[in-house]
Amino acid sequence: MKYSFNTWAYSDFPCWVPSYPFEETVRRIAKIGYDGLELGCAQPQAWPYYLGREERMQMRRILKEHQLAVSSMLPAPGGGPGGNIASSCEKERCWTVQYWKDCIDLGLEIGDCQTLLCVCGWYSYGTRQKDAWSWAREGITQVAEYAADSGVTLMLEPTACDSNLVESCEDAISMMEEIGMDNVKLMFDTTHALYRNEVPSDYIYQMGKNLKHIHMADYDRKAPGTAGCDFVAIMQALKDVGYEGYVTMENGFPTRACHPDSVARQSLENLKAIEASLK
Amino acid sequence: MKYSFNTWAYSDFPCWVPSYPFEETVRRIAKIGYDGLELGCAQPQAWPYYLGREERMQMRRILKEHQLAVSSMLPAPGGGPGGNIASSCEKERCWTVQYWKDCIDLGLEIGDCQTLLCVCGWYSYGTRQKDAWSWAREGITQVAEYAADSGVTLMLEPTACDSNLVESCEDAISMMEEIGMDNVKLMFDTTHALYRNEVPSDYIYQMGKNLKHIHMADYDRKAPGTAGCDFVAIMQALKDVGYEGYVTMENGFPTRACHPDSVARQSLENLKAIEASLK
Amino acid sequence: MKYSFNTWAYSDFPCWVPSYPFEETVRRIAKIGYDGLELGCAQPQAWPYYLGREERMQMRRILKEHQLAVSSMLPAPGGGPGGNIASSCEKERCWTVQYWKDCIDLGLEIGDCQTLLCVCGWYSYGTRQKDAWSWAREGITQVAEYAADSGVTLMLEPTACDSNLVESCEDAISMMEEIGMDNVKLMFDTTHALYRNEVPSDYIYQMGKNLKHIHMADYDRKAPGTAGCDFVAIMQALKDVGYEGYVTMENGFPTRACHPDSVARQSLENLKAIEASLK
Amino acid sequence: MKYSFNTWAYSDFPCWVPSYPFEETVRRIAKIGYDGLELGCAQPQAWPYYLGREERMQMRRILKEHQLAVSSMLPAPGGGPGGNIASSCEKERCWTVQYWKDCIDLGLEIGDCQTLLCVCGWYSYGTRQKDAWSWAREGITQVAEYAADSGVTLMLEPTACDSNLVESCEDAISMMEEIGMDNVKLMFDTTHALYRNEVPSDYIYQMGKNLKHIHMADYDRKAPGTAGCDFVAIMQALKDVGYEGYVTMENGFPTRACHPDSVARQSLENLKAIEASLK
Repeated sequence: MKYSFNTWAYSDFPCWVPSYPFEETVRRIAKIGYDGLELGCAQPQAWPYYLGREERMQMRRILKEHQLAVSSMLPAPGGGPGGNIASSCEKERCWTVQYWKDCIDLGLEIGDCQTLLCVCGWYSYGTRQKDAWSWAREGITQVAEYAADSGVTLMLEPTACDSNLVESCEDAISMMEEIGMDNVKLMFDTTHALYRNEVPSDYIYQMGKNLKHIHMADYDRKAPGTAGCDFVAIMQALKDVGYEGYVTMENGFPTRACHPDSVARQSLENLKAIEASLK
Repeated sequence: MKYSFNTWAYSDFPCWVPSYPFEETVRRIAKIGYDGLELGCAQPQAWPYYLGREERMQMRRILKEHQLAVSSMLPAPGGGPGGNIASSCEKERCWTVQYWKDCIDLGLEIGDCQTLLCVCGWYSYGTRQKDAWSWAREGITQVAEYAADSGVTLMLEPTACDSNLVESCEDAISMMEEIGMDNVKLMFDTTHALYRNEVPSDYIYQMGKNLKHIHMADYDRKAPGTAGCDFVAIMQALKDVGYEGYVTMENGFPTRACHPDSVARQSLENLKAIEASLK
Repeated sequence: MKYSFNTWAYSDFPCWVPSYPFEETVRRIAKIGYDGLELGCAQPQAWPYYLGREERMQMRRILKEHQLAVSSMLPAPGGGPGGNIASSCEKERCWTVQYWKDCIDLGLEIGDCQTLLCVCGWYSYGTRQKDAWSWAREGITQVAEYAADSGVTLMLEPTACDSNLVESCEDAISMMEEIGMDNVKLMFDTTHALYRNEVPSDYIYQMGKNLKHIHMADYDRKAPGTAGCDFVAIMQALKDVGYEGYVTMENGFPTRACHPDSVARQSLENLKAIEASLK
Repeated sequence: MKYSFNTWAYSDFPCWVPSYPFEETVRRIAKIGYDGLELGCAQPQAWPYYLGREERMQMRRILKEHQLAVSSMLPAPGGGPGGNIASSCEKERCWTVQYWKDCIDLGLEIGDCQTLLCVCGWYSYGTRQKDAWSWAREGITQVAEYAADSGVTLMLEPTACDSNLVESCEDAISMMEEIGMDNVKLMFDTTHALYRNEVPSDYIYQMGKNLKHIHMADYDRKAPGTAGCDFVAIMQALKDVGYEGYVTMENGFPTRACHPDSVARQSLENLKAIEASLK
């Protein structure tokens, strides 16, 4: 299996520190032994609007030098501009659609990345869920049409921990089916399944061939295998369904007390050991 | 004393939900009995770039209708664009300076707000602290010059919880003195003093006449008086130094489990009761 | 306001002990000062299929003697027969529809009860959510048609703690709207709102005039006011929307260590004290 | 030794979710490596009254296909109908006797199961223990007479955690002796021994040759070996007394946060490892 590590733990999102520049982040993740990096599109690594042609070519060189692929691009939701694709504010929805497109372009330019991850938004008090659902569906469709030209696939993620729109495995499947495009598929994050007191491996069997990406995190965003969740069942399920995507860690980031390198190393060691023991 | 409540608990920052539109937020904070609202410049209430002339006039009407003043404007730091005034990335510094200016304008247009709060930034791995300090000083100076024309004052805040540049009372005083402008003053947040295991009331006596704004929060961003910090000493100190600013709550926001109205009400009740009992 | 107490804490559901017969339960709840009793339709108080004409007349006499109204009837979900109105098993759905009808009849016969509470079901692994949703809607509609003849209203409850179908305030509103009958209204239980890290008082404002019943419980099914939830905001919201139903406690039951009388007494004392202090 | 896993963790009892249909449950338990399945007679797997001739034959085929034996049948106690064999309500006792007989028949038809587990009931406030004891003895005797014709044995279980009638090892032995039938034997569940702060292995030596079935669970219904109980002593005792029954896990079920497959796998791995190390 291929392994990737998400940059949030090294970035300003959602904690401002610890924080590492792009090159330092790439160097560390590569050295720990990952095949890929999942790039959170936020400072200080990858806010698209601070990155000109020259900076992007430099990023490409750095990735190549360290032989690290870009497994996936992840727009940053929340914070000042919102980035809520399901917002009742039309300007916010437009901005979000454009931002996601710009994240796609950035991923292509620095690492030929074919994968964009999608948090499907949330609704404020007073907005009807069905309206937010429609806005999300429309916005995602627009981005998917743009993405199709470059062969990029969007991965819909249920995010029950933080949002109230696409919360469950079934919600994500329904959104995918309603959009009905070949380049709109599914991912899930173990954290959100655990938050719902659901069984992460069940998500894998239910999503089956439509599961193209995954986020691995133990309880409290700890490294897999260090906080009580059973990753043997999860890794076995990935093998059972013939999963071909990256095994990506999105760990450690919601606290300043995170030691990114340690989390990255422990995550990789623990999951590789499980992989080696699977039947 | 005048009391104000910060909108983070009602916004998408840093949690996406619960989330309330501007009018609903104003209505609730006014009904609970506050004199002012501290406006976090983030979605869904106040991201300046989604707010045209008409929306701003509507916000002004809403505030007037509910007789709620805008005590202060607070730019949102972190997240996608960073908003780090001390960043080693020049584009980020420029963007941040402009964003802060735009927050000033927004505050003036919707509520004649004379106060801008300033998180003085942080530095990533590999950046020297002294360089970050210089960039922060330069950026803040630029904004202060712009603000001076409208009589707006900048409040420098030590933020040890989240950042690594202006951490202590002394750091904030030094930054203020180095900038040396009449409209650059001080504020502090009890949370950051508690994080450093320092005595909040000491900050008040040390900052003295330069203390123009304050954030009140008990341990873990709980409502004052509900989590163990002694607010009698803090309120007494404010009285002793002749504090004339708003007593502002910045509470409840870092968790989805927050019930904003409850936090707002308890904060106000508890501090008003202490105020009434002061000698 | 009128207050009612749910019998689970005195019954075999879901804990087998402590357990009290019907008359003893009525006597205790009345003595503590409640206006009404919410009858869980389970042993040892009220499994309809063990109660003949004579037993029912006796129950009516007991209630009258103690001047206790039947505020609401609550079918027991889960356990052996399932009682899942959204089940993929047709026999279970039929059984559940009949059981709910029998609960309506029982409530009418013993206390002219006009209120039936509805847990809208859940789906097992392998069942599609949309199918379960349709089955729930159909089953509830059948019961509602039966209920209409007697003037009985069904109250749909979001139950995120225990189920995966109607989880949120919005889910319940959508189900109500899809059914579209005058005698299908809404209720909610603070426990389930807290489980979702949502704001209970928001449920009240959002459900508004359609909110006809409520379950009051603090965190962990503790008595209101004993475990950290703010019931002032909740009681104020009930007053604000002109709530006319019973304030019903569904507390204490999920553990053998429950002392039902104590929970009943503390719940009533705490909420009456808040009611007296409302503006 | 032969190992079996109880279906509660996959069923609606006592939690409604997670929940899996019969075939899915069988497939998973077999794949994990169990020899047998203990069938909880509840939804969605095995409520006898929803299962006609055809469904039962289908269940038989599924079990055969997956080479999984039915180690034992377990009626669901509590909930709506009560199912309390010691109830002061005659109709409930009659219903329970019939339900137990129907569980026996179901077990025979789908898997030639020779074992019925018996929770000996409990008494409500106001009922005398000696009366409840007599009712339990009478009801169990009736079922045992019915069972004898098919060679089925009843296993009496002390259930101190949840009931107040047959609580201890001695209680169960006394009930067995009073009934005095060849097909009424004993079982125990480590959970209930631990609840009484007693030594599980002592139960094994005391029950000796009359011990025909066992439930293995660590503290809090966790998988054996994951929560602090010493299963080496228990497994050694089983070997010492020449135990020939199934080593059955009744784990994970009282919480929605249960991951059934993980509990089943860990339980099996841990006890097999202990078995291999016994002297």
